[in-house]
Amino acid sequence: VRLSDLGEFGFIHRITPGCIVEPERVVMGIGDDCAVTLGENGYLNLVTTDLLIERIHFVLDFTTGYQLGQKAMAVNLSDIAAMGGTPRDAVVSIAIPKHVDVQFLDELYRGLKAMARRHGLNILGGDTSRSEHDLILSVTMTGRVREDQVLYRAGARPGDRIFVTGYLGDSAGGMHAVVNHRLPNNDNATTLAARYREPLPHVRQGQAIAATGLASAMIDISDGLSADLTHVCTTSGVGCVIDTHRLPLSSELKAYCEKTGLDPIALALYGGEDYVLLCTGDAELGASLRTSGADAIEIGDITDGKERVIRRTDGTHEQLGLGGWDHFRSER
Amino acid sequence: VRLSDLGEFGFIHRITPGCIVEPERVVMGIGDDCAVTLGENGYLNLVTTDLLIERIHFVLDFTTGYQLGQKAMAVNLSDIAAMGGTPRDAVVSIAIPKHVDVQFLDELYRGLKAMARRHGLNILGGDTSRSEHDLILSVTMTGRVREDQVLYRAGARPGDRIFVTGYLGDSAGGMHAVVNHRLPNNDNATTLAARYREPLPHVRQGQAIAATGLASAMIDISDGLSADLTHVCTTSGVGCVIDTHRLPLSSELKAYCEKTGLDPIALALYGGEDYVLLCTGDAELGASLRTSGADAIEIGDITDGKERVIRRTDGTHEQLGLGGWDHFRSER
Repeated sequence: VRLSDLGEFGFIHRITPGCIVEPERVVMGIGDDCAVTLGENGYLNLVTTDLLIERIHFVLDFTTGYQLGQKAMAVNLSDIAAMGGTPRDAVVSIAIPKHVDVQFLDELYRGLKAMARRHGLNILGGDTSRSEHDLILSVTMTGRVREDQVLYRAGARPGDRIFVTGYLGDSAGGMHAVVNHRLPNNDNATTLAARYREPLPHVRQGQAIAATGLASAMIDISDGLSADLTHVCTTSGVGCVIDTHRLPLSSELKAYCEKTGLDPIALALYGGEDYVLLCTGDAELGASLRTSGADAIEIGDITDGKERVIRRTDGTHEQLGLGGWDHFRSER
Repeated sequence: VRLSDLGEFGFIHRITPGCIVEPERVVMGIGDDCAVTLGENGYLNLVTTDLLIERIHFVLDFTTGYQLGQKAMAVNLSDIAAMGGTPRDAVVSIAIPKHVDVQFLDELYRGLKAMARRHGLNILGGDTSRSEHDLILSVTMTGRVREDQVLYRAGARPGDRIFVTGYLGDSAGGMHAVVNHRLPNNDNATTLAARYREPLPHVRQGQAIAATGLASAMIDISDGLSADLTHVCTTSGVGCVIDTHRLPLSSELKAYCEKTGLDPIALALYGGEDYVLLCTGDAELGASLRTSGADAIEIGDITDGKERVIRRTDGTHEQLGLGGWDHFRSER
């Protein structure tokens, strides 16, 4: 069997058995934004980890050290946010190749620390190494969440509405602008590029959603709305309908797409790295979110069955594609 | 300034300021085998992390997948052991290049899980990615230790004795045998190679030492006796004398060195990756260790001042070299 046949999720499925040997303290192992273990005094412990590897996850031509440091923290903070949690501590490991200089590293750590400080997160340590080829960053982050507030991917119920906490597609539009060097003299592209390079994790919004006690499921949108909503639907055993006219699109994305001929709806559905949150819940959640400060926008409904459907403005329906990124199967 | 001028410890020193923003829950940040934070019910939380990168930390020709998996866990378990702690949970991230196949990965995870199971450690999750060049493993491990038993590198006092929990130099001898293809028809080399490829972390011994309540400092010997004892001495503000005739050398190492002309004392002092523990304490600790099950061997004394000295069998003294491995400064 080959890794490209297994795919990333097939591989994860293959290695999962036997990972938990002390199940009584584990609430959630592999399969959500964070792993969850029993804590003390009404709290659960959260842990998440992300690798960032040069030429796989980022290209040095397209990011400053500061931006890369911020982003390495942001992607992990977003996982903590997706559980409704509060970040606590992180360890940061780095392997440094010869082409990365101290000035870049100083900026990288300035970015890591700035993002950490903003969220009351300690950097407790890490490991340092040289690297033959690529710059490698590995961040592991812990957090905690009240056990009566934790939210998982599983839990969405037929009849629930679907909410997101911010614009979709901006990061994909920004990546397009960066890769195609469309930044000079285009304010919209510059704004989108900043959203791609400097994503802001929705930690406060996640906590506000969790604090309502009314949401049924939550996930962060890192792989794209389609891929991440599919995770919610498959783990919850439900379907969904997304109304394309309700997808929150920034004015910058609309203007940039008009100029470049890109389809903003496709970017919103299948682009990744927006790092906004998606949650589900009933009408009461919707009412509560309007006053919660979570800035959530309703974009569709959870349905009975397994169909995942897009409803276009003209009333036509189509299947929601899978989208997302499989590290072992595909070349984007 | 260049990274090769800073060196690994200079770089760590440079990035440390500003890492801790919530100091009230941090007992020990960067600078010991584990970071330590306040826990509950009389326990402290421990966290450690290690990167293992192909061509930097290992070569695929010289290890099986199973051995590599075991070792990736063992190096982190050894850090937990060095604090007197009990391992709890781990996350394992992996980036996989095209030349690594599923059979190797199956063996790798079998080794990771076998070592985890032996120590009651859960693998809670991780991140998976492809890699352009090298196989990359990043393990982050948590543990805990009773707050009245935790041991740090700092704490050694003049007059203390120095103890180690096992043979020194075997791993360096084993690496020599592996790299020089001296394995066939040489039982001693095979035994040493197994100690290099399959180190066993001294978790039980670390707990036994901590439970005496009599040790003043502890560290694991990963970079070599010289380098790690130097960490104890500099953080404790003391010196040391090592008696070379007391260094515990295995019969296999002695036989292998006789055959190859290697100096077993040099391997014991400056070789790395033995993953035994070093601790310090007074005569009462020595007496207690004899009945503790920690199998500790006395090898020298902590002294006043800053001198670090080797006392040879013939009575001559010399300075203890630094040894150890600087990822940014040196090519071993």
